[in-house]
Amino acid sequence: MTPEEFRRSAHELVDWIADYRSNIENMPVRAQVEPGDVRNALPSQAPQQGEPFASVVSDLDKIVVPGITQVQHPMHYGWFPSNASLASVLGDITCAGLGTLGISWESCPSLTEVEEVVCDWLRQLTGLSEQWEGTIHDTASTACMTALLIARERTSNFSENSGGLQSEVKPLIVYTTSEVHSSVQKAALLAGFGADNVRSIAIDAISRQMSATALQDQIRLDIENQCAPCCVIASAGTTGVTAFDPVDEIADVLEDTTIWLHVDAAMSGTAMLLPECRHLWHGVERADSVSWNPHKWMGTILDCSLFYVKDPEHLIRVMSTNPSYLRSTVDGEVTQYRDWGIPLGRRFRALKLWFHLRLDGVDAIKQRIRRDLDNALWLVNAVEAEQDWCIVAPVTLQTVCIRHQPQNMNGEALDQHTLNWVDRINQSGAAFMSPSKLDERWMVRVSIGVESTERHHVERLWRVIRTTAHECL
Amino acid sequence: MTPEEFRRSAHELVDWIADYRSNIENMPVRAQVEPGDVRNALPSQAPQQGEPFASVVSDLDKIVVPGITQVQHPMHYGWFPSNASLASVLGDITCAGLGTLGISWESCPSLTEVEEVVCDWLRQLTGLSEQWEGTIHDTASTACMTALLIARERTSNFSENSGGLQSEVKPLIVYTTSEVHSSVQKAALLAGFGADNVRSIAIDAISRQMSATALQDQIRLDIENQCAPCCVIASAGTTGVTAFDPVDEIADVLEDTTIWLHVDAAMSGTAMLLPECRHLWHGVERADSVSWNPHKWMGTILDCSLFYVKDPEHLIRVMSTNPSYLRSTVDGEVTQYRDWGIPLGRRFRALKLWFHLRLDGVDAIKQRIRRDLDNALWLVNAVEAEQDWCIVAPVTLQTVCIRHQPQNMNGEALDQHTLNWVDRINQSGAAFMSPSKLDERWMVRVSIGVESTERHHVERLWRVIRTTAHECL
Repeated sequence: MTPEEFRRSAHELVDWIADYRSNIENMPVRAQVEPGDVRNALPSQAPQQGEPFASVVSDLDKIVVPGITQVQHPMHYGWFPSNASLASVLGDITCAGLGTLGISWESCPSLTEVEEVVCDWLRQLTGLSEQWEGTIHDTASTACMTALLIARERTSNFSENSGGLQSEVKPLIVYTTSEVHSSVQKAALLAGFGADNVRSIAIDAISRQMSATALQDQIRLDIENQCAPCCVIASAGTTGVTAFDPVDEIADVLEDTTIWLHVDAAMSGTAMLLPECRHLWHGVERADSVSWNPHKWMGTILDCSLFYVKDPEHLIRVMSTNPSYLRSTVDGEVTQYRDWGIPLGRRFRALKLWFHLRLDGVDAIKQRIRRDLDNALWLVNAVEAEQDWCIVAPVTLQTVCIRHQPQNMNGEALDQHTLNWVDRINQSGAAFMSPSKLDERWMVRVSIGVESTERHHVERLWRVIRTTAHECL
Repeated sequence: MTPEEFRRSAHELVDWIADYRSNIENMPVRAQVEPGDVRNALPSQAPQQGEPFASVVSDLDKIVVPGITQVQHPMHYGWFPSNASLASVLGDITCAGLGTLGISWESCPSLTEVEEVVCDWLRQLTGLSEQWEGTIHDTASTACMTALLIARERTSNFSENSGGLQSEVKPLIVYTTSEVHSSVQKAALLAGFGADNVRSIAIDAISRQMSATALQDQIRLDIENQCAPCCVIASAGTTGVTAFDPVDEIADVLEDTTIWLHVDAAMSGTAMLLPECRHLWHGVERADSVSWNPHKWMGTILDCSLFYVKDPEHLIRVMSTNPSYLRSTVDGEVTQYRDWGIPLGRRFRALKLWFHLRLDGVDAIKQRIRRDLDNALWLVNAVEAEQDWCIVAPVTLQTVCIRHQPQNMNGEALDQHTLNWVDRINQSGAAFMSPSKLDERWMVRVSIGVESTERHHVERLWRVIRTTAHECL
C-alpha cells in the first residue's frame, strides 16, 4: 500500500472512528454475540488477492463491532474503567504511523527519551520523590512479575548467574493477601516460587487491609523454619473492594531486612494525581518498586503500565542482555529500556501518554477524577438510603460494592438473586457491572470512572438496578 | 476531547503521517541526535492546561522525528526488517480507535475470535498442520519465555502448584547454542533455570547449526549426572547469520523423551510463507511449540509475535487464572487468551494482521519476500565477484554477512577497519547496517527486506560500501 492509498483509506477510517465513538452511547454495553458468532462469520482462509478497503470497513460494522463489549460506554461499570481518551488515541495513532522500532536507544532515541520524560512527569504528578525512575510495561501483570524476578535475584544473590532458583537451599517466600489481584499469584508461580511459598497474610475483616502484625509474625516463623523471606506485594487499591494495604506499617516490618516491597497500585494509582488521596499509599517512598496503570482510570489507552524502581542498576543487572549485534557507539551513555523488562522489541508507547497529558492537560484529568469520586459518593448515599440495600465494603475511591438483601433472604438464595439481577442487566445491554465474591458470597461491584460517565448516568444506573432487582424477586 | 475535536485533529494527523511516510527516503537512515538531545528539548513538567494540537505536531517535526532511526527507509539494512506495512498500520489505528479491552472473551468477543481466525490463517500459510493452535504475543522474547515456563512445568510435574522450581531435586536443563538470540539466555535466567543449567551445544563450524550428535551426548551426560533435561530451543534462522538448526534431527534425539522442543523462527518464520523455503525447518511438526514474528520481515507492524502450541491444555494449566471477578456466563465454551500468556489485559492486535492480509493479499506479500531473496542473491554475487571482499557465512535467506578483507590485514586491525567503514556509513545517514561478531571477529550484516527496498537500493548500497571501505584504508 502506497502512502497515497493509505491517506485516502485513513481519512475514511478516521471518520468511521469518530462516528463510532460518537455513537457508543446508543449501543448495548455488553457484546450481543454468542461464542463462535464472530469466528464463524469470517472466512477460514486468508485472501490471496488484496480486498478493497470498503470490504474491511463493512466487516468491521457487521462482524467486529457487535462483538465488542463497550468499555468506553458511559453505562459501563464493569471490572475497572478502561478509558481510551481520544487525546491518547491520537498518540497511539502516531505510534502506528511512525512505525518505529525500540530495541536499543540507537534504534529510536526519541522512543527512549520521550519515555524517560513522561515517566518523570507522572512521577512528579503522583508525588513520588526524585529517587524513583520509571519505564512503561504492557500491564501490571508484567510489572509485578518483573518485581518478583528482581526480588528473587536480590534475595538469592543473583542465583540466575549460577545454579538458578533451583539451586537455592532455603525456600524463597512471597507475602501477599487473599485480596491481591490474580496476576500476583500467577506471577509468583511463573517466577518459580511455587504455591507453597506464597503466604496469604491475614487481613482485617472490615477494611480488608493486610495486617502488618500478622506479616511480622509470619516472617519470623519463616525465618525460624529456615526459609528466606523475599518479597511483599502490597496492594494500593485491591481489585475486589479497593482496599489499601498499610504500606508504611509494612515498611516498618521490613525495616533492616532485605525483603523487597512492591506496591501494586494498578487501578488506584490514578488517584495519586490528587494530593488529597496520597495518604492512602503513605509510606510508598519506602518501597522498592511501584506500578500503576494510566490505561485504567486515568485514561491513556491500553497498554500503558508504569513501573518505578529506586535502584535501576539492580533491575538492569537482572534483566540485561548485550549481544554484539546490539552494540552501538553510545553504549553506557544512554538508557536501554530493553534491560528494564522482558521483551526486547518495544513500541513507542510514550507517545500516548505524551499526547494525553499535553492535549487534555493535567487540570482537566484531575477534575474528571474528582468528578468520579463525587459520583461514587452520590451512589453510596443513594444505596444507604434505600431499604434492603447495602454497601458491603468501605468505599475508598470510585468502586462501590453493593448487594440487594431482601429480608429473610440469605445463603445460596441470596447468591442466586444477586447473580440473577446483575446478569439480567448485563444481558440487556443497558449497563454492565461485575459480580464478585466477598467472603464467599456474591456481591456486585459498581466501578465508576468511564470518561463519559456523568452524574445522570449513575442516577440512571441506580434506577435500573433497583427496578431489575425487584423484578427478579 | 470530543469525537468532533478528535475528527479534526486525526484528519490532520493522517495527512502528517502520509507525508511523513512519503518522505522517508529523503531522511537520514540513522537518527542524527546525540544522547540527551530529545530529552533536553522537552519541558521537565507536564502542562497543567491542555495545549493546541498544532503544538504537539510541531514538536513531532522538530524534536521527535530527528530522533528516529528510520527502519522503514529503503536503505535500512540493520538488525532485521522491522516493516510496518501501511495496510497493517490501518489495522493498528483501528485497534486504537476502538479502545477495546481484552481481559476475557466476554470483555471483547471479537478480539478473541478474530485472533483465533488470523492465527489459523497464518498456520495454514506457513504449512503447519491442524494440530497447532496459536496466539499473539508481543515479542519472540516473551514467546520463548512462555515456552520455557511451560517446559519447566512439564518436566517438574507442575512444581508451581507446590514447592516451585526451588523444590526440584534434579537441576532442570535447557539446551541451545551460542548462536541463539540473546533473549533465549535471558528468558532461561528469568525462568529460574540458572546460567549453569543452560547448555551451549556445539555447532557446525561452517553452517553454524546445532549438532544433533553433540546434543544427544550432552543429554546422556546430564542424565548420568542426575540432571533433568527439560527443553531444547532450536533456532530456525539465527540472528547472526540465519543458520537453521536441524529440527528433524533434534526431534529424533528427543523421540521417546518428555524434553520440550521449542522452535524460534522469530525473523525467518516469514520465509515459511514460501513452500520452497519450508525444507529449512523440516521436522517442525514434531516440536512442542513454535514462534515467529510477522512484525519483522512479513511487515505487520510491531508488536505481533505468533506463538503456536500443540497442547493448549498444558499451556493453559500452567498460565491460567480464574478469579471470581472475571467469571462470565460462557466460561468453558470460549478461548480465554489471558491464560495463553503473561499479561491479563490485551490489545486487539489481531486487527493489524487481519487488515494486512486482507488489504495486501497473500500473493503480494509472497511476491515481495521472493523479491528480497533475489536481492540478497544479487548482493552475494556482487560481493563474491569483487577482490578483497568476502561472504563470511552461508546465505540462507535475506541476510548477507560480509567483510572487506584487504590483503595482509587481519586480527585487531581488520576489526578496526570493519567497524570504521560501517560506522562511517551509519553515521552519514546514507544507509544503516549492523556490525556483529562471528567467531570473535567483527563482520557486517546486511539484512535485506524493508518493504520499500528495491534492487536499485541494494545496488546503491553496494556502491556506498565499496567506496567507504576504500576511503577508510
